[in-house]
Amino acid sequence: MVVFEITVLGANGGPTEYGTQCFILKPARTEDPELIAIDGGSGMHQLREMLVQGQHDNESYDEFVPSFYEHDREPIEFFIHPKLSIQKGLSKSLIQSLKRQEGHFESANITKQTFKVFQGITDYYITHPHLDHISGLVVNSPSIYEQENTKKKTIWGLSHTIEALQKHVFNDLIWPDLTAERSEKLKLKFLNSREVQKCTIFPWDVIPFKVHHGVGVRTGTPVYSTFYIFRDRKSKDCVIVCGDVEQDRRECGESLLEEFWSYVAENIPLAHLKGILVECSCPLSSKPEQLYGHLSPIYLIDELSSLNTLYNSSKGLSGLNVIVTHVKATPAKRDPRLTILEELRFLAEERNLGDLRISIALEGYTLFL
Amino acid sequence: MVVFEITVLGANGGPTEYGTQCFILKPARTEDPELIAIDGGSGMHQLREMLVQGQHDNESYDEFVPSFYEHDREPIEFFIHPKLSIQKGLSKSLIQSLKRQEGHFESANITKQTFKVFQGITDYYITHPHLDHISGLVVNSPSIYEQENTKKKTIWGLSHTIEALQKHVFNDLIWPDLTAERSEKLKLKFLNSREVQKCTIFPWDVIPFKVHHGVGVRTGTPVYSTFYIFRDRKSKDCVIVCGDVEQDRRECGESLLEEFWSYVAENIPLAHLKGILVECSCPLSSKPEQLYGHLSPIYLIDELSSLNTLYNSSKGLSGLNVIVTHVKATPAKRDPRLTILEELRFLAEERNLGDLRISIALEGYTLFL
Repeated sequence: MVVFEITVLGANGGPTEYGTQCFILKPARTEDPELIAIDGGSGMHQLREMLVQGQHDNESYDEFVPSFYEHDREPIEFFIHPKLSIQKGLSKSLIQSLKRQEGHFESANITKQTFKVFQGITDYYITHPHLDHISGLVVNSPSIYEQENTKKKTIWGLSHTIEALQKHVFNDLIWPDLTAERSEKLKLKFLNSREVQKCTIFPWDVIPFKVHHGVGVRTGTPVYSTFYIFRDRKSKDCVIVCGDVEQDRRECGESLLEEFWSYVAENIPLAHLKGILVECSCPLSSKPEQLYGHLSPIYLIDELSSLNTLYNSSKGLSGLNVIVTHVKATPAKRDPRLTILEELRFLAEERNLGDLRISIALEGYTLFL
Repeated sequence: MVVFEITVLGANGGPTEYGTQCFILKPARTEDPELIAIDGGSGMHQLREMLVQGQHDNESYDEFVPSFYEHDREPIEFFIHPKLSIQKGLSKSLIQSLKRQEGHFESANITKQTFKVFQGITDYYITHPHLDHISGLVVNSPSIYEQENTKKKTIWGLSHTIEALQKHVFNDLIWPDLTAERSEKLKLKFLNSREVQKCTIFPWDVIPFKVHHGVGVRTGTPVYSTFYIFRDRKSKDCVIVCGDVEQDRRECGESLLEEFWSYVAENIPLAHLKGILVECSCPLSSKPEQLYGHLSPIYLIDELSSLNTLYNSSKGLSGLNVIVTHVKATPAKRDPRLTILEELRFLAEERNLGDLRISIALEGYTLFL
């Protein structure tokens, strides 16, 4: 049964500036056009693009994906596991709920529709404050003051995220401090690692976990990021959405990923784990010093192997959807997303992880998990 | 005689996150594929889009501009003064110089071409550190470490800009502090207001001027931005490129715009002033408290009237190109760029400013001034 609708607004790992990480989530069966976002690298512009395409596509869709390496477009099946349920554009149920709730949605121009859809994002869960994960939400933020917008937005994160957003972004220097407006339409709120928090708009639990993401260039101190578990309280189904991450820095005395996978294996029966959206920024050929706090296929497969060992199922991780995000663009001959996908599939087979369903997160598509 | 080639990578005033302000400039007659950028809201992605379009257009071009208000596209002549010289995409001379200097440019894939064009941007002149003016350059910045990239980049700005970029962006929290890398491939450098600086790659002078751009929400203290004059030392021709700006805050005891226009009128004969790229974020209907440190048509025309008075020419400002940037998207019926352009043209006539050539800065086009 489909529980989660996840629309990929951006899954680009840089250095191109457009379509950086942002996923919008909703339960598959809601009457309301409300959404949560995980990260805010992209936003209104991408929503507008999807509304425009939705107009022209008339239920059918282009089965090619922009690539700009060997060819400017590649067939979608190169990127997606055949058993992954996917649709181009915003989900039909979201569009239906907007038409139902907003009298003039259908007749409004694309820009008005965009503001309306974007208004529905009431809660952001940010993984870490690097610019490619927040730039969209920051630039979009003044839209909350449009007259027709009656909703507020809350930005949630662990302390490393919220403190940085307050001190270095909403500080009247990098961006007007909209959190200081008397209208309180934009709020920053703290989460604690490993603490179950009720999602304010859906019947879901949200559980954040701190993970490592490299060290500062100047400071040399650890940089942190966040993995989020979203759990439907009724069905107990879960999806894991990850920020940028590297393998555990054991020299820091913190085994954050090890603890995370233990939590997952102990608390989420494998059948209820509907998918993991996780980064794999760099191809296998990258040297450790070229990873800068990210994963390459060997490290991601190591992590999935740890999870596999903990679950200790005879079928391995068969049926689990792993959606790969944040692949970095490089001046290569071949699309690095295709290189990385091939490498991951090869390594998963070599490590006997079962029939894992590995796919690439594609901007502008909605996944059903 | 054409002196300046200005490609608009982004001219969007938010709240959509894509295509925010970035202009790339080069002299019309250079052999080198080197460029300077004014602001860095957009970058590599937009360059890639332009290279892709250049492939398909075969010298002809689409004469419609994306709009998404009354219609999804509007004729280009609605946005552009008929005497403004404009071309879709990157300038032919830039593409020619890339083909000449880079043996494999023509046969390389679009992604490799994009890295190559982007590498040519060696100097950024930033107007102010608001996120919509820097996000592209920050996310693009790791590309300097690609093996094939032999060039360095320098980010120039007045102290309010450079200090904020160092403290709040390249600080190992919002972004890795790439300025601390031993390779020194990315540098931040200070400019002083009103001080003539030689452009490092072109035979141009660069003269920055501090201007007002609202006050902090929490702090209430003035926020500053920058106007840049670029002057070709041989022909003495100039172009003015402006960051976000509001009318002078005389209560602060600073008449920054008044001083700027005096400098212009005293130092640049009107015939040598090839154009002004300036913001006009909000339509005439905006109340003063809705401007948040920006201009609406009445204020921009006030400023141009001041310049007109100072020049005191019998023909007014006839022949001067005014290119309007940073128009904010709103959930309106009509494209606010068209509303603002109409209002500006009406007011310019009412104020007898002569045959001003007012146009909208269109993303993805190159202007010749």
